[in-house]
Amino acid sequence: VLEEFQPDAVVHLAEMPSAAYSMIDAAHTAFTQQNNVIGTLNLLWALKTYCPDAHLVKLGTLGEYGTPNLDIPEGFFEVEYRGRKDILPFPRQAGSFYHWSKVHDSNNIMFACKIWGVRSTDIMQGIVFGTRFNDQPAEARMCTRLDFDQCFGTVINRFCCQAIIGHPLTIYGEGGQRRGILPLRDSMQCLALILANPPEKGEYRVFNQFDSAYSVYELAKMVQSAGQSIGLDVQMTHVENPRIELQDHYYNPSNEQLRRLGYCPSTTIQDELVRMLMELKPYARRITEKMNVFLPDIQWSDQH
Amino acid sequence: VLEEFQPDAVVHLAEMPSAAYSMIDAAHTAFTQQNNVIGTLNLLWALKTYCPDAHLVKLGTLGEYGTPNLDIPEGFFEVEYRGRKDILPFPRQAGSFYHWSKVHDSNNIMFACKIWGVRSTDIMQGIVFGTRFNDQPAEARMCTRLDFDQCFGTVINRFCCQAIIGHPLTIYGEGGQRRGILPLRDSMQCLALILANPPEKGEYRVFNQFDSAYSVYELAKMVQSAGQSIGLDVQMTHVENPRIELQDHYYNPSNEQLRRLGYCPSTTIQDELVRMLMELKPYARRITEKMNVFLPDIQWSDQH
Repeated sequence: VLEEFQPDAVVHLAEMPSAAYSMIDAAHTAFTQQNNVIGTLNLLWALKTYCPDAHLVKLGTLGEYGTPNLDIPEGFFEVEYRGRKDILPFPRQAGSFYHWSKVHDSNNIMFACKIWGVRSTDIMQGIVFGTRFNDQPAEARMCTRLDFDQCFGTVINRFCCQAIIGHPLTIYGEGGQRRGILPLRDSMQCLALILANPPEKGEYRVFNQFDSAYSVYELAKMVQSAGQSIGLDVQMTHVENPRIELQDHYYNPSNEQLRRLGYCPSTTIQDELVRMLMELKPYARRITEKMNVFLPDIQWSDQH
Repeated sequence: VLEEFQPDAVVHLAEMPSAAYSMIDAAHTAFTQQNNVIGTLNLLWALKTYCPDAHLVKLGTLGEYGTPNLDIPEGFFEVEYRGRKDILPFPRQAGSFYHWSKVHDSNNIMFACKIWGVRSTDIMQGIVFGTRFNDQPAEARMCTRLDFDQCFGTVINRFCCQAIIGHPLTIYGEGGQRRGILPLRDSMQCLALILANPPEKGEYRVFNQFDSAYSVYELAKMVQSAGQSIGLDVQMTHVENPRIELQDHYYNPSNEQLRRLGYCPSTTIQDELVRMLMELKPYARRITEKMNVFLPDIQWSDQH
């Protein structure tokens, strides 16, 4: 396909996207890393062989960095150590075998750029939420997919579905975990900017792609407030955190590069949450039928 | 097997070990990472499930670090960045898809230690050479295997085989690449020390395992000198470097931890080279029959 089509760019979104799914058992861990890592390696070889000038846009995740007690730069940082200086890749400390599969991808892509002259943008994206992108066609069949289960439903999507049917928002643990988030419409805006501004041949660049960082508890409060503004009675509850992660920590990733390319938030989080709740309202019955998927039973470890 | 045997330790050497082999084509790259990464993941799940207290001793490579312009610590270092401090994994910059497979393993093992309480020693080993270990049985059937081809024959083994049959030592490029090396007998000494001194439960520790670092040119000179001392006429030649690597660079990995556990070189490099050449002499005809494997034809890139 690449040989015949000769693309200017390839946007690679074809990965298994769930942290919880990758932690189920040995087979799910192996599938996750096999699918993501080997799939990306095959794509890298195909690019090298058939369209070496194409721009590879790869979706990584802000979760590759974990939550170090330092500011998080975009991919690289200058380090001074025992009197010498160098610019090094920023160390990754991912929190699931899925997130590690993205780190392995990032490392393989960085290497392919170095030895083969592939050009690539590796996107460390925050948690995406929402149902719409700008200029989305109006027909129902062009609606986005929306998951709200423990594996594929990210936290804000789950909270909004819970708010719609009067189910308490299920906060994992105390909810102090901080993460970067981004509305779907601005994820698409950033992708378009990246495609319009490709890197140099052989360049491997890393963009942190998110709007702002919030704690899970703050996100629940924002969904509650958006729900109240359209007449929903939204309660919150805490459930045992099935994940092993810091629940109260420093978090300060930078996102300068996309802003320099022209990224500008097209909406506030609060407004987007209200629009999303309005749009989900007609589907309340579908959500209620599946509400058994709200509670997480995939544990990161059986020892806690 | 693990459930029935209940081992105190598992020494994991079951990986595809060649940088050049991993660079042949897409299928060889995929096989390398599939075999090494998924094999290690399966072992991690088996340890967690059947013998969670066993000590995993994993063979990584000093090549995981690449050649940064800084001292190389053992796995972790303290960093100050924008006014804050943290202890972080030392960033890896491997030089082949094989070396990257070892980085991916290291990352997966570090994570398993953190979430499941696995205990592991991850060995960043230098280039091993030699034919003997201490207390090796005398029978011929207990001899070690020795490869000297471009894929599985490491640099000193190749130089020694070339010296034996009067073939010039094939130095890749100028030979300024510096690497840590270790005689086989001391690789075994270190493994024994590691097994006798296991880490705490949940501890992930990284040991840099090598004797000293030399440039490829220095190694060739040492083999030449060892050869001359037993009457061999040893010439050197430079061949085009098929690899993409720095050929003149800073290199200073630390190896304090094994020394603290009691590691002490049991021989000098020079003496070991002489012993090795003496031992290879009777096999000169076998080496001559296969001398077509000396010249490297696997290129890291077709663009240089």
